[in-house]
Amino acid sequence: MNLKIAVLSGDGIGPEVILQAKKTLYAIGVVYDHEFVFEDALMGAVAIDKTGKPLPEQTLNLCLNTDAVLFGAIGDPKYDNNPSAKVRPEQGLLKLRKELGLFANIRPIKPYKSLLDSSPLKRHIIEGADFTIFRELTGGVYFGEKKLNDAGTIASDLCEYSEEEITRITHLAFKAAQNRRKKVTMVDKANVLETSRLWRKVVKKVSENYPDVLLDFLFVDNAAMQIILNPKQFDVILTENLFGDILSDEASVITGSIGLLASASLGNKNALFEPIHGSYPQAKGKNIANPIASILSAAMLLEHFGLHKEAKKVYEAVEKAIEYNVVTIDLKADSKFGTNEVGDFISNVI
Amino acid sequence: MNLKIAVLSGDGIGPEVILQAKKTLYAIGVVYDHEFVFEDALMGAVAIDKTGKPLPEQTLNLCLNTDAVLFGAIGDPKYDNNPSAKVRPEQGLLKLRKELGLFANIRPIKPYKSLLDSSPLKRHIIEGADFTIFRELTGGVYFGEKKLNDAGTIASDLCEYSEEEITRITHLAFKAAQNRRKKVTMVDKANVLETSRLWRKVVKKVSENYPDVLLDFLFVDNAAMQIILNPKQFDVILTENLFGDILSDEASVITGSIGLLASASLGNKNALFEPIHGSYPQAKGKNIANPIASILSAAMLLEHFGLHKEAKKVYEAVEKAIEYNVVTIDLKADSKFGTNEVGDFISNVI
Ligand SMILES: CC(C)[C@H](C(=O)O)[C@@H](O)C(=O)O
Ligand SMILES: CC(C)[C@H](C(=O)O)[C@@H](O)C(=O)O
Repeated sequence: MNLKIAVLSGDGIGPEVILQAKKTLYAIGVVYDHEFVFEDALMGAVAIDKTGKPLPEQTLNLCLNTDAVLFGAIGDPKYDNNPSAKVRPEQGLLKLRKELGLFANIRPIKPYKSLLDSSPLKRHIIEGADFTIFRELTGGVYFGEKKLNDAGTIASDLCEYSEEEITRITHLAFKAAQNRRKKVTMVDKANVLETSRLWRKVVKKVSENYPDVLLDFLFVDNAAMQIILNPKQFDVILTENLFGDILSDEASVITGSIGLLASASLGNKNALFEPIHGSYPQAKGKNIANPIASILSAAMLLEHFGLHKEAKKVYEAVEKAIEYNVVTIDLKADSKFGTNEVGDFISNVI
Repeated sequence: MNLKIAVLSGDGIGPEVILQAKKTLYAIGVVYDHEFVFEDALMGAVAIDKTGKPLPEQTLNLCLNTDAVLFGAIGDPKYDNNPSAKVRPEQGLLKLRKELGLFANIRPIKPYKSLLDSSPLKRHIIEGADFTIFRELTGGVYFGEKKLNDAGTIASDLCEYSEEEITRITHLAFKAAQNRRKKVTMVDKANVLETSRLWRKVVKKVSENYPDVLLDFLFVDNAAMQIILNPKQFDVILTENLFGDILSDEASVITGSIGLLASASLGNKNALFEPIHGSYPQAKGKNIANPIASILSAAMLLEHFGLHKEAKKVYEAVEKAIEYNVVTIDLKADSKFGTNEVGDFISNVI
């Protein structure tokens, strides 16, 4: 197979972890005779620094015309602590998601056997947990109108959803559930929010097409608790943009480190793959960031193109690294391996 | 002291747990020679059933003219699963919060020594954790304009905040921090939301009045993870309405059961005390609901009126119940004690 992949390393630890994902894909290409052509482009704080824009036209055009996007991380404290900055790195990622129509963000959560004791949660709570979060990614409060009055004293964000936006991701979630344990848990705040009530109505309607899948509902406050109390109850979690953002970071504790969690963002035409951790600026350039989330994002990319045995090979290589303790300090405080060494190990095993 | 207390037991397990709080206050009154006069009133699904309104005028008037409100729980599945219901129990609680101006909801989180092994989290993670969540309670997406188009295909909720709304709760949070470990963590999503950026700006400004208190910031997704990874890092968490709702339910896992968590909702003139758990309809009438959250809410009421030694007495009685395993099945699966027995034990110890 021949794939053209746009690589947006982004900010903070983005470049160093994405480099390991590229190494991995390169190794897969050699072993299985595929050609992956990488094209680097700017996005985020680094793009603002160089071009004034968080998502330069050139980057967007490239992403629109490649088979897939591999993305690192975005964000820089110099913007976070400046509430009145007009241009912000995150705008680049949000615009990219919107322009590529990446409406479904898929985040699998499953602890590794050899890491069952690395979680802050007790082993019996997490052993056997295996669920996937389907987070709506191009709607909700992320994209609704934002206002600040002239005096700078009143601000607002609009959360908006349409039946169509809800329908398309709901189908994906139910299809995924059909290939899993056949349960979808819709998370919302329908006792307070109008948008949540629309979600509930639409999801119920769509669910009629999938009589083999069980549908249940949880309020988001309860869900945030249940994910910790009893993560095994979940199979597919379906939720809106902001709730998905919060719950997926929270759920990362089940695996022991957010540095292990990959995600795929899918649209009708385009696809983007990214680790769910952020730019982690404190670790930048120190060779301590965990590259596994990025490497697993590359594996999700392979799966997306039907390269299942190749993806499996990557999963196995990652498991081997974890099993042999070739991991970064987030997983083993006294580890002598860094970002690069973990990436090398994994690509060498392939 | 002479206190007139409006009692809104509400729905589900509300009445049975609030009864135990009343017993406790009654016992305190006898021992310390205070007179607590309780006046019951309707709110929630039960109020809709009887009067057609979730918050009847009479109830609101009573609450406006008493010293404090003791509130149980609200919510009924028959409304949750009917997205197009026009009248909903939760509207009663939201209206009451608004009308009484209860802008600050205070939720303390601290595990009991003898329950350190009851949490899904490992002992070393939670031992020593002790923080309080200050949740803004009368603003944000809970109260912004809600819309549904005529076709029922597009819905929206507006999240709005003003400088004034942010300022008043921020002062309370910083004052509380001054009497604690002198740290405030503001939780927001300032990399995406305009309202969060306003929060950041205002909180920074207010913080200048409290040079002895350290202020830091976390994005809500990261906060949802940090509460589980390292709860000891927190002293006072300050956040907006919806984030506070999610994070406080989540944080309940630290204590082993949401059935232990009390809250105070304060305004300039009024005060309301309630357990943070919901109406838990599946447990209604079974004598299995944990009354401790309600009893501790009564203790927060006592503290609010300066009755510190009385509150301490309640805390000690609760500790004794926990220590002697006189607890409900959420804390000890094979417990033979029910809601009533736990309430009796605690009020007898006083
Ligand atoms: C960087 C930020 C805008 C982003 C989000 O909130 O979507 C990130 O947290 C994520 O989850 O991908
Ligand atoms: C019942 C519901 C409206 C309420 C809320 O979301 O505020 C509850 O969850 C709470 O936390 O008090």
